[in-house]
Amino acid sequence: MSSDCKMIIFIGDGLGDRPVAELGGKTPLEAQDVPNLDFLAANGLSGQLNPVAPGRRVGSDTAHMAILGYNPFEFYKGRGPFEAKGVGLDVLPGDVAFRCNFSTVDGRKVIDRRAGRIKGGTEELAAAVNAKAGLIDGVQCIFKESVEHRAALVLRGEGLSELITEVDPHHEGVDYPDCQPLPEAANDPAALKTAAVINKWVQLAYEALKDHPINKQREAEGLPAANIALPRGVGTAANLQPFKEKYGLDGALIVEVDLVRGLGQYLDMDVVDVPEATGGQDTDEIAIAKAVVEALKDHDFVLANIKAPDLGGHDGDAKKKMAAIAKVDNAIGYLLKNLDFEKTVIMVTGDHCTPVSFMDHTGDAIPAVFYGCGVRPDEVETYGERAAMRGGLSNFTGEDIMPLLTNFAGCQEKFGA
Amino acid sequence: MSSDCKMIIFIGDGLGDRPVAELGGKTPLEAQDVPNLDFLAANGLSGQLNPVAPGRRVGSDTAHMAILGYNPFEFYKGRGPFEAKGVGLDVLPGDVAFRCNFSTVDGRKVIDRRAGRIKGGTEELAAAVNAKAGLIDGVQCIFKESVEHRAALVLRGEGLSELITEVDPHHEGVDYPDCQPLPEAANDPAALKTAAVINKWVQLAYEALKDHPINKQREAEGLPAANIALPRGVGTAANLQPFKEKYGLDGALIVEVDLVRGLGQYLDMDVVDVPEATGGQDTDEIAIAKAVVEALKDHDFVLANIKAPDLGGHDGDAKKKMAAIAKVDNAIGYLLKNLDFEKTVIMVTGDHCTPVSFMDHTGDAIPAVFYGCGVRPDEVETYGERAAMRGGLSNFTGEDIMPLLTNFAGCQEKFGA
Repeated sequence: MSSDCKMIIFIGDGLGDRPVAELGGKTPLEAQDVPNLDFLAANGLSGQLNPVAPGRRVGSDTAHMAILGYNPFEFYKGRGPFEAKGVGLDVLPGDVAFRCNFSTVDGRKVIDRRAGRIKGGTEELAAAVNAKAGLIDGVQCIFKESVEHRAALVLRGEGLSELITEVDPHHEGVDYPDCQPLPEAANDPAALKTAAVINKWVQLAYEALKDHPINKQREAEGLPAANIALPRGVGTAANLQPFKEKYGLDGALIVEVDLVRGLGQYLDMDVVDVPEATGGQDTDEIAIAKAVVEALKDHDFVLANIKAPDLGGHDGDAKKKMAAIAKVDNAIGYLLKNLDFEKTVIMVTGDHCTPVSFMDHTGDAIPAVFYGCGVRPDEVETYGERAAMRGGLSNFTGEDIMPLLTNFAGCQEKFGA
Repeated sequence: MSSDCKMIIFIGDGLGDRPVAELGGKTPLEAQDVPNLDFLAANGLSGQLNPVAPGRRVGSDTAHMAILGYNPFEFYKGRGPFEAKGVGLDVLPGDVAFRCNFSTVDGRKVIDRRAGRIKGGTEELAAAVNAKAGLIDGVQCIFKESVEHRAALVLRGEGLSELITEVDPHHEGVDYPDCQPLPEAANDPAALKTAAVINKWVQLAYEALKDHPINKQREAEGLPAANIALPRGVGTAANLQPFKEKYGLDGALIVEVDLVRGLGQYLDMDVVDVPEATGGQDTDEIAIAKAVVEALKDHDFVLANIKAPDLGGHDGDAKKKMAAIAKVDNAIGYLLKNLDFEKTVIMVTGDHCTPVSFMDHTGDAIPAVFYGCGVRPDEVETYGERAAMRGGLSNFTGEDIMPLLTNFAGCQEKFGA
């Protein structure tokens, strides 16, 4: 059913952290002044989110699935399909999809996995690859650029399999390997066929790219040539019930990364593009907040994600993470000023922790707060990892979120009489 | 994957309790001075462990299964097989296994269920039983002594069933009953056959034991004769994935009781014997702690159990339980002095509560604390039942433990991207 009370999930990507010595044992969130987040905590209901279950390390894709109520252990079929959906490719049942990087190789040796984070011309490069390698052994190979060095590849044809190894070696200075069937599929004809197609595709992509004028120009400028594309993150089409069908709500997604955008497209949600949202530390958080306010005018539900806190976490840079958290707080401040929280309920959390001391995702619980219509406040006064431990929700999981939100919003069907 | 950060689960058997009037309403753990456990709590992350789920009463075997991440509701097939494994017997698919006590009977009347807790000679007695009752109706009957009056029996043959009643009446001064099929298997040929074999075996064991020289000697000394063996705890082979295969970790188990040792052998873990560990109130807790430090040198993971707190609980003796808890604290003190907790993470908890007021296991939550590398501390300052209620982990279950530990240790694969 549609709702009189609007719902928001606002995610600071990688928001949670662990104590940092240079911050006197505080986390970046505890050390940063966040008056708006503290206001939510002081007037809302806090708790600790474990997207899947306590201690489980998740990715951004699996975490966002869990937060929207789709159990990733049941539904996740690899990252490639999300990335492909995110750039606008279809992923149909039977397709096998990959994330790719434009990379720089010398022979088989990987010199730069991201081709100098190439900024332009990848649309033309992808077109050249598709012209040369669009059909291999009867299999359609559909390649499309994303932002910077990122791209996606979809294979479509009979008898394909995802039970194959990656071509991207994830390291530089080493040769990229051939694609092979996984050990458990060593004699599986579909895996053998798919691996053979990928190996031919990688070779043909190289031939299409190595002497391309854009790369000649890059080399002339001393930049790494984007002379190959290396697939990884193989997966098949996930079978996800559309968001509207599952919850009866019109939902919009405002995200900065293609991965999560792909999930939105899978769920048939409206994916709102915010040109000022860069996905970087320099993103315009107020533009994102404005987009939330705008999207709520014709949607019941909006999920928004600011990527920046995750970047400082991956970089091990506590100050950078604090600055990104200040942006999240700033966005929340805009929402507090521009929405009526008698008719809006918001949850603010992260999709996972990315502690600066670990520089990758951990399975630590993430502080979370609900604020607005219908929310019964607890006694927590501030927003932070340790404050959330005293929250009225204690520990909860992703599958609790939509029931909690729709309960507060007063738009949940009663089960029973 | 193996881990740079080592992991410990340290269990005080039956550790948790309920308020005790003679302790002014404190629990034995709250009443006992435990500076080392308090240190863990003040610098770690506390919570309440429910091995299976809140309120469920579990045994030591099912609790340890749950703590290691093997859901006992799915995998537990009776205690007999663990006991049999613990004394070194094989339990193969199709086998039916039992715990047994050497007991003292007069005719069918049970005089002493534990034959005066007989201390020696049971190896010879078991050999006599095997000589007389090793093969009945084509079924191999393999009997082996454990410590004191304890023993195990494995039946191996075609068409056996665990759907039978116990012979041990669990009380003294009453006749031991015949073994019978359970009501739901009243006409099951396998249950009928197994019950018949057991009844013959009990009779033959009696014949082998009643005039045995060891028993004649005992009677001459005024001690109860171990003149029969009474089976109970019937079960079949559990199908448990080896620990190393499930977690990719080299694991060792340091325990004082055969039951849990049997679980370790089922899971193909290295079971470390500590000669000074008696399983009694007089156990050498420092020897156990030293064995943990030693085992960590070539294992990623060690589970250690000190049995003593459970004994005071079963005896209803609060002072005895407090003294045992002091031993647990002492062992933790040794670990704190002799391990580097920048590279080690420890969880301390119990497998269940054994309140002195109940004198048996209860399904109450057990205080638990994680301390060491990667752990984000909460605001709890002491280790105890009520302090743990304020812990940042709130309530969690056994299946969360290994994910939490491997998350803190930084050796858990990320699910998703």
